[in-house]
Amino acid sequence: MATQTYEIQSISRLKDAVALIWADGEKDVFHHIWLRDNAPEGRHSVSGQRFVDLLSYPAEVRPISVEVDWTGQLCIVWWPDEVVSRFDPAWLKENSYSGPAPVGDRWKRTLWDSSGPFDWSDAPTYNQVSNDTEALRLWLGQVSEYGIALLRGVPVESGTITKVVEFFSCVHETNYGQVFDVRTVPDPTNLAYTTLALSPHTDTPYRDPEPTIQLLHCLVSSGQGGDSVLVDGFRAVEDLRLRHPQLFEELVRWPVRFSWGDGDTELSAEAPMIRVDAQGRVDRVRYQNSTMAPMRVPDDRMLSFYQAYRAFSELIAGSSYQAILKLEPGDLIMFDNRRVMHGRTAYTEAGERHLQGCYSDMDGLHSRLALLTKE
Amino acid sequence: MATQTYEIQSISRLKDAVALIWADGEKDVFHHIWLRDNAPEGRHSVSGQRFVDLLSYPAEVRPISVEVDWTGQLCIVWWPDEVVSRFDPAWLKENSYSGPAPVGDRWKRTLWDSSGPFDWSDAPTYNQVSNDTEALRLWLGQVSEYGIALLRGVPVESGTITKVVEFFSCVHETNYGQVFDVRTVPDPTNLAYTTLALSPHTDTPYRDPEPTIQLLHCLVSSGQGGDSVLVDGFRAVEDLRLRHPQLFEELVRWPVRFSWGDGDTELSAEAPMIRVDAQGRVDRVRYQNSTMAPMRVPDDRMLSFYQAYRAFSELIAGSSYQAILKLEPGDLIMFDNRRVMHGRTAYTEAGERHLQGCYSDMDGLHSRLALLTKE
Repeated sequence: MATQTYEIQSISRLKDAVALIWADGEKDVFHHIWLRDNAPEGRHSVSGQRFVDLLSYPAEVRPISVEVDWTGQLCIVWWPDEVVSRFDPAWLKENSYSGPAPVGDRWKRTLWDSSGPFDWSDAPTYNQVSNDTEALRLWLGQVSEYGIALLRGVPVESGTITKVVEFFSCVHETNYGQVFDVRTVPDPTNLAYTTLALSPHTDTPYRDPEPTIQLLHCLVSSGQGGDSVLVDGFRAVEDLRLRHPQLFEELVRWPVRFSWGDGDTELSAEAPMIRVDAQGRVDRVRYQNSTMAPMRVPDDRMLSFYQAYRAFSELIAGSSYQAILKLEPGDLIMFDNRRVMHGRTAYTEAGERHLQGCYSDMDGLHSRLALLTKE
Repeated sequence: MATQTYEIQSISRLKDAVALIWADGEKDVFHHIWLRDNAPEGRHSVSGQRFVDLLSYPAEVRPISVEVDWTGQLCIVWWPDEVVSRFDPAWLKENSYSGPAPVGDRWKRTLWDSSGPFDWSDAPTYNQVSNDTEALRLWLGQVSEYGIALLRGVPVESGTITKVVEFFSCVHETNYGQVFDVRTVPDPTNLAYTTLALSPHTDTPYRDPEPTIQLLHCLVSSGQGGDSVLVDGFRAVEDLRLRHPQLFEELVRWPVRFSWGDGDTELSAEAPMIRVDAQGRVDRVRYQNSTMAPMRVPDDRMLSFYQAYRAFSELIAGSSYQAILKLEPGDLIMFDNRRVMHGRTAYTEAGERHLQGCYSDMDGLHSRLALLTKE
């Protein structure tokens, strides 16, 4: 990576801030309080953590002197405690807040529809991602960018799914255990354990926090049907926002309660179906018809809520959004549970279908991806 | 528990809804679409999950007939598919949305200050909560109500902390492992592993989702200092809101990035310091000076952000908020990491201090508490 050098041409003192004019003529303003709070001398040498508390200096902290030292760094002597701080110009440029905020975060996002996120036949194998960090990086990158990735050739052996999680992070255990089995059982406490079709949904919206990654590993698939149905929830949300902005707002606004229990568990959590971040970008979808509790909104808003809920449901159920993937033994899908909805077609009692599932979290995936990207 | 019976006196048909007049003269309105979506016949008999999709009937679904049957249930025959639904009147009353929404959720919340959440000397012992479900219920209830609870007489043995988690839920593993050790180490990658004082903070705000419960188990405490400093973050937030509503709004509005890494981990997450729920109640605090990344808000908002951040920091640092608790070997505290901030006073190099920590989640705690409350 080429290192760009930044040169401070001149400095002007403002009332509450320092303005830097760069060699290219651009100008950045940094407030005194911000500079002092981010002084490198206030960071622990090994952990990089800040150990100087905001309250250890007054709100009116300001430079006694500001200059560019002989190494090109910005050198400030502070009033009142005469502490000296030296700032690297490249660091200042990188953390400048004078311009408009960068849109989105560092991870690229690509929306997809029924044609799927990418060509499934390009999926890497278990051996590739376990032996080759570049293959692992590309595979984790797909989950980050598309919200989903496929892995092939995963040993058809119960429990292997946790080894896949260990490639990047750790298992997020829930009431369903470290690993759970999705197959038909008598007296099912969850619709997942029947042969019924499941319409696309996100998992465990009745948890707070809910696991943000799901993995499903196919061990047996001998019957007709049981195809996986996958929907990019962010794509559906963006289309809802474009076509029906008012309905989109209804789903952002009203919290929905989801509840589920069996004899050993009684979970309940409330959050809107769609959440947007501070920049207005959708960052979370919670959608599971089967566990949605009776809705509570003011009387005169119930119809508009249902209108919005129906419009969103229609998008998700539409063939233009649903990508179909038949998992074969040894296939494993991993997806962002805040973004990608998964379901299945019904399957015959005659055949057998056995998936093993487990949860993890996107923050751990992004941590590993950040480290692999640096290498 | 006494069961109240509800009697439907009369029914009137509205354009989009059914109005019920109860025997006591009160009236509740239920929209057709809401009734159909919540029809008990649409729920799976064992799991209780809804299996009838919203899209399986039209938006204009409406009753062909509505009547009270001979058992007192509300009986509706639906147009267009002639499906019959029977609603229990008590269930309807409980789920009525005609009145104002109930404030808050089912769990009581009591704020506290430097005098602490309750009398620490009343803390139960490990043996009590492991043998007596009522003691366990009261103990978990303290975490729910006050955001914190103390347990005494926990065997001073490495790893016992996970047995405490198993009383109610499971461990939330992170990059720090299932269990982590808080004690002095050479070349610490985290300030926690030094003898330095730590100002009150919430843990791992650089994760998303962050663990919502933390447990700390004292194994050794032979030196001077190292007292635990505990602050009810919700109390500090409510006082900030009361005294400086505009500053409160600043902290709700602007996302703050927290970042932390060592050689194996590189975590980064962004969220406002204070989050409020749809009813405007504070439901999450993220506060950790040491890992806060350089702040980015528009240029002309930086000073007001810092003014708010400082005002909040001053409250947290104030002696009227900080409850001090010296943990002795065998003591264990468990707290809501979205609410209670924890820190410690500095301690001497001469003595030894060893805490074991681990994370879990509030949803699992509330699940167990809900089941124990039913018993």
